[in-house]
Amino acid sequence: MAKDNKEKLVEAITSMDEDFAKWYTDIVIKADLVAYGGVKGFTVIRPYGYAVWENIQLILNQMFRDTGHENVYMPLLIPESLLNKEKDHVEGFAPEVAWVTHGGKEELTERLCIRPTSETLFCTHYADIIHSHRDLPKLYNQWCSVVRWEKTTRPFLRTREFLWQEGHTIHATKEEAEAETLQMLNIYAKFCEESLCIPVIKGRKTESDKFAGAVSTYAIEALMHDGKALQAGTSHYFGDGFARAFDIRYQSRDNKPEYPHQTSWGVSTRLIGGIIMSHGDNEGLVLPPAVAPVQVVVIPVAFHKGGVLEKTEEIKAALQSSGLRVKLDDSDSSVGSKYAEYEMKGVPLRVEIGPRDAAEGKCVIVRRDNREKAFVPIENIAAEAERILGDYAAAIYKKALDNREQHTYRCKSLDEITEAIKANGDGFVKAMWCGSPDCEDKVKEQTGVGSRCIPFDGEHIADTCVCCGKPATDMVIWGNAY
Amino acid sequence: MAKDNKEKLVEAITSMDEDFAKWYTDIVIKADLVAYGGVKGFTVIRPYGYAVWENIQLILNQMFRDTGHENVYMPLLIPESLLNKEKDHVEGFAPEVAWVTHGGKEELTERLCIRPTSETLFCTHYADIIHSHRDLPKLYNQWCSVVRWEKTTRPFLRTREFLWQEGHTIHATKEEAEAETLQMLNIYAKFCEESLCIPVIKGRKTESDKFAGAVSTYAIEALMHDGKALQAGTSHYFGDGFARAFDIRYQSRDNKPEYPHQTSWGVSTRLIGGIIMSHGDNEGLVLPPAVAPVQVVVIPVAFHKGGVLEKTEEIKAALQSSGLRVKLDDSDSSVGSKYAEYEMKGVPLRVEIGPRDAAEGKCVIVRRDNREKAFVPIENIAAEAERILGDYAAAIYKKALDNREQHTYRCKSLDEITEAIKANGDGFVKAMWCGSPDCEDKVKEQTGVGSRCIPFDGEHIADTCVCCGKPATDMVIWGNAY
Repeated sequence: MAKDNKEKLVEAITSMDEDFAKWYTDIVIKADLVAYGGVKGFTVIRPYGYAVWENIQLILNQMFRDTGHENVYMPLLIPESLLNKEKDHVEGFAPEVAWVTHGGKEELTERLCIRPTSETLFCTHYADIIHSHRDLPKLYNQWCSVVRWEKTTRPFLRTREFLWQEGHTIHATKEEAEAETLQMLNIYAKFCEESLCIPVIKGRKTESDKFAGAVSTYAIEALMHDGKALQAGTSHYFGDGFARAFDIRYQSRDNKPEYPHQTSWGVSTRLIGGIIMSHGDNEGLVLPPAVAPVQVVVIPVAFHKGGVLEKTEEIKAALQSSGLRVKLDDSDSSVGSKYAEYEMKGVPLRVEIGPRDAAEGKCVIVRRDNREKAFVPIENIAAEAERILGDYAAAIYKKALDNREQHTYRCKSLDEITEAIKANGDGFVKAMWCGSPDCEDKVKEQTGVGSRCIPFDGEHIADTCVCCGKPATDMVIWGNAY
Repeated sequence: MAKDNKEKLVEAITSMDEDFAKWYTDIVIKADLVAYGGVKGFTVIRPYGYAVWENIQLILNQMFRDTGHENVYMPLLIPESLLNKEKDHVEGFAPEVAWVTHGGKEELTERLCIRPTSETLFCTHYADIIHSHRDLPKLYNQWCSVVRWEKTTRPFLRTREFLWQEGHTIHATKEEAEAETLQMLNIYAKFCEESLCIPVIKGRKTESDKFAGAVSTYAIEALMHDGKALQAGTSHYFGDGFARAFDIRYQSRDNKPEYPHQTSWGVSTRLIGGIIMSHGDNEGLVLPPAVAPVQVVVIPVAFHKGGVLEKTEEIKAALQSSGLRVKLDDSDSSVGSKYAEYEMKGVPLRVEIGPRDAAEGKCVIVRRDNREKAFVPIENIAAEAERILGDYAAAIYKKALDNREQHTYRCKSLDEITEAIKANGDGFVKAMWCGSPDCEDKVKEQTGVGSRCIPFDGEHIADTCVCCGKPATDMVIWGNAY
């Protein structure tokens, strides 16, 4: 009976080898992360999915606070004239914004767009509050939703509305602003690797791939199960371009008017998509402990017998008092269907306890990632669970890293790129580049992979550009991206 | 010098007796709570104001969680056809929503409104996920921003965009849903009284004042400094009206299709307006300790002398380790301007320490509300600060309650109402009512006060309606409202 139930549920997910995209959306729906809303590209983030996001917020908020950032809230709507102030910025965003034209029954005298990002709003505010070098820096962050009218959509990865944080900072000098840009990229990388167990590559975007209005854009790039790249976070240095466009000036120490330098940086609910495609398997989600809404589920086996339920309460209390997020499931569903449900939901550890275990004062801890079982004395449950969660986090990180290594191809010619991908599937291609946008386009046209970033720790693959054969300036990571 | 600075700042606020509305907006701006955005009715909530909101969120979130509620996120936009599904609801909200008509360059086939509230979205989702009695109840809450196209706006009190939480729950029975509605009203009242130090009256709204689509609406009403009422939170019972309109049905235990019963309840950033107008004075904001971003500010007097700075660090550390939110201001501004700044910002306690105090191992704690000073040994600083914060919270609550009592008038005729307000200013009028909407309108027309609520603990003022003289059914609280 138990087995039947489990198999019924597992059958309901498409295998990732069969259809990766279908496997992804199956998990999103069946793990209760998301439900579809009434409008294309707008989703309901259900309690289980939202709890993952709240855990992401909690950790990042602390990292932002520790580096001196403050949270603010800017208006939802941007007047068209304001969006138009910075030339590159408006060109990048105007084609994909949602326009409000009426308030109640009245037609507005000026259209307002729903923020696709808030540079223009922060700049307006900065122009208002910054007058002296004593007003600098301002290190602001905002948690909110934004809207971009995308053509094709997929839950978490590309939605018309998504939740994110956008940091916006303003500094007296170029050096300070550039240091901030890199500091935040490093915070994102640390967060992804340590809290989400997702290995990332830090690097700079090429000119053609920069954020609209940025002098330089940095990103962290991760490789998913299927060999496609996911841009997991970006950090931009704006120079004084926005300050000039919005006339933000400050009086320097020697009483001269100066333009300040700005940054912005963001991560979004897209990270949840990254978690799914980095760690998930054919039984469902596999969650990193740091953001799992439930870290340990306790399941009594035959719980009407031999004091089992009392023991599960004892286990729950011990785990909770050591700070773990625990759920005790003593509902009357079958044990097998419970196992399947919490596997689908990616709960890292499952504690099973039956009458014989209870009598012997022990229980079983089962890992979600590799199904390894450990027989643990109940008196040590909290310490053992913490130890195993540590091993689990390290293991899923390593698995994702191994996958990336296996799908990283060092290539010296366009043919080598094509062959590597043909032989091993999508992945990260490491190849040299001369810096010309033409070659960047040609690589994409002829091999299908676009530039992901110029990593900070590039290797020396060759002396010459993989495309034109002229002297190379950089090693680029190329790939097919979400 | 110090004194000059202080007086300069204080002069900058309009006295509340001179112009209450101006006093209010002066505080909002000068305490760095809000800055005006580019669009009427849309404000920037600055770090200091947003930190108050985050503290409100933290406390309420815990109260919601303790009563079994889960957070979710629903789409920002509602298709026009969806808004139209519940007749009363659309009539209430359609005139004041913002309409999105274009996505990028394309005109949409159906207009979408920015959510003014999310009943229609929750109902659509509930119709999707609720099938059996086993799926009930769902106790959901959402933190988000909403937009209502108001004609006249004022920061926090009435803005076109505001931040709030909206709880939406769905239950198998009427009794359960009604109990939930009242439970949440009680949570709001407890929060306002204990965390915001604002006394509130709990009651039911009259028919004419109900939420669009509700069977019954309950509210908590507070009285501001100027004698005007503020509706601080509402909780609605919907019966099965929305369930019928959205075709949400569940299979009961005896296998019959049934309509579930729903509730919704919300509080918003309006509460910050309530804090200002309940506790503020002519020097600025006065914050309740539970939500103050800084509970204690430590200010060294002549800090280059006699180990003062070392002592302030010691004081800060002691306060922080007992869990208080502390700021040490050792900037080179004058002491007087610092005093004025933190008074404006409503920081509950100020610790002053000069060279002589430092030598004697003591410091001074000054309360923001009444300027009372206490000389405290540094070794007792944390315990003393906590004790004084407790006294302070009780004192500002009592002051607000005294103000309400002084401005509560028990009236038996319309003339008595007019005279009481003429003699003592705006306030809460307690008077009997026959239950007729006509009388409700007449009271408003002839005396200027509208019905605020029918309180749960109404007094017996008379046997007959204050307006028509027919037998009274209820005591109503009447007032002029924000």
